[in-house]
Amino acid sequence: MEIPFIKMHGLGNNYIFIDTFKFNLEEDMLPALARKVSDPHTGIGSDGLILIHPSDQAEVGMRIFNKDGSEGRNCGNGLRCVAKYAYEYGLVNQTSFKIEAKSGVVEASVSVEDKQVTDITIDMGKPKLERSLIPMAGPKADQVVAEQFEVSHHPLELTAVSMGNPHAVFFVEDIQTAPVHELGPIITDDQRFPEGVNVEFVEVVSEQEVHFRVWERGSGITQACGTGACAAGVAAVLNGYARKNSEILVHLSGGDLIIRWDEEDRVWMTGPAAIIAEGTYHY
Amino acid sequence: MEIPFIKMHGLGNNYIFIDTFKFNLEEDMLPALARKVSDPHTGIGSDGLILIHPSDQAEVGMRIFNKDGSEGRNCGNGLRCVAKYAYEYGLVNQTSFKIEAKSGVVEASVSVEDKQVTDITIDMGKPKLERSLIPMAGPKADQVVAEQFEVSHHPLELTAVSMGNPHAVFFVEDIQTAPVHELGPIITDDQRFPEGVNVEFVEVVSEQEVHFRVWERGSGITQACGTGACAAGVAAVLNGYARKNSEILVHLSGGDLIIRWDEEDRVWMTGPAAIIAEGTYHY
Repeated sequence: MEIPFIKMHGLGNNYIFIDTFKFNLEEDMLPALARKVSDPHTGIGSDGLILIHPSDQAEVGMRIFNKDGSEGRNCGNGLRCVAKYAYEYGLVNQTSFKIEAKSGVVEASVSVEDKQVTDITIDMGKPKLERSLIPMAGPKADQVVAEQFEVSHHPLELTAVSMGNPHAVFFVEDIQTAPVHELGPIITDDQRFPEGVNVEFVEVVSEQEVHFRVWERGSGITQACGTGACAAGVAAVLNGYARKNSEILVHLSGGDLIIRWDEEDRVWMTGPAAIIAEGTYHY
Repeated sequence: MEIPFIKMHGLGNNYIFIDTFKFNLEEDMLPALARKVSDPHTGIGSDGLILIHPSDQAEVGMRIFNKDGSEGRNCGNGLRCVAKYAYEYGLVNQTSFKIEAKSGVVEASVSVEDKQVTDITIDMGKPKLERSLIPMAGPKADQVVAEQFEVSHHPLELTAVSMGNPHAVFFVEDIQTAPVHELGPIITDDQRFPEGVNVEFVEVVSEQEVHFRVWERGSGITQACGTGACAAGVAAVLNGYARKNSEILVHLSGGDLIIRWDEEDRVWMTGPAAIIAEGTYHY
């Protein structure tokens, strides 16, 4: 079977996209297809498969399958790619529209130059700050802001934020020497986080700029984590390093994102997406 | 720039192929293109780039660029892919033809069913067995067959074969417990091999069948090494485990190859190649 595909990436986080407006796939073939197409040796190679599909609740829908074949709930980098595709390939005519993901419907808007989408802004929803909603062990309704947190005899200060997934944010003096490799794998499995946690180290440059490195739950060090950048922006405001409703430029290993936590409690993420290749996959 | 490409693999060894009969590329862009297109995060992802080009000496020519942008001399898995492409895409009409690689001109023949190439046989040239041509330290004109070879207090028996690149072959009782991971990285840099060496462990099942695992010089453990499988076949004959001019089925991690060392001293490799995807790359 020859399946039309497009490969795109957002800050290096890369997926194979199949537009099911044009080409239909059987439900029961999806997990195996995701595994095969993502294999770096015998497939195209990717972080997973994203279906772009018709939706009753939004202009377009997306479903994400990880490279192990399991279905994911959401992906900030993937959402930006879907928004770029939807505009450039004519699934939408307007520059602001809605995308349905498994985790819910989000707003997207695109900046356009010469019919090309340069940047995409995505509504990443409201952060959850109560300890029990992170989830994290301890007094239920408390927020976790600059809380003493010792791990392997390192005294750290933890700020915990959920963006639908749990994040542990630690502010450091120098991002280059941050113990991502040393403490990331320990903190991510720390028993105080019953569902595990994404671990982020953040160096504050100014109220408008931070550096960011991440150890992702289940993946290790990655080039970019959209929800992690959002959590870093929220944590910077909670700790008084940045201001609500102001844009914060977050430098990740794979590139830059702009994060804004607005007065209505929504977090907005702005960044690029790029088309790598398109064609047919021989399945 | 939109560049037409095809991604193919031979036993998991995968390349982006560009047909310069149809689409010309500037010489000075090739190293950067190889690096970018091979990047697993922001490119298509591959082990490198192979150009399929017109040749004065053969029906088709191929040039291989590794993913670091350096130009290689040859690649058995890549040659099988080029042969499949040349036949299926009409660059040749006959089932036997010549391919020019940087290391020389080789003969190729394809087996065809329903216009699809199922298997490809490649003339991998003559092995070099003199110690100085491996190259390996020691008495110049000697062959290295079942020679005592101690490494990290492990007493091994070494058979050394050059297939244009150096191979150290060790026969083991059980391929599953072969010390590929433990001794591969040590032997590959052993000072007795002034240019380094590919390290192969081989379990003999019968005169017609062996199991094979490899630590490739510069790459580590890989799923398949065409020249390594050839060296294993030659070493099996040299040690009396197999016969000259008979086919030997070699089981590699990525699949099977058939090796035959003929009476005229040539080594023939037969195996599959597969098309993964084709389309345009946005460079």
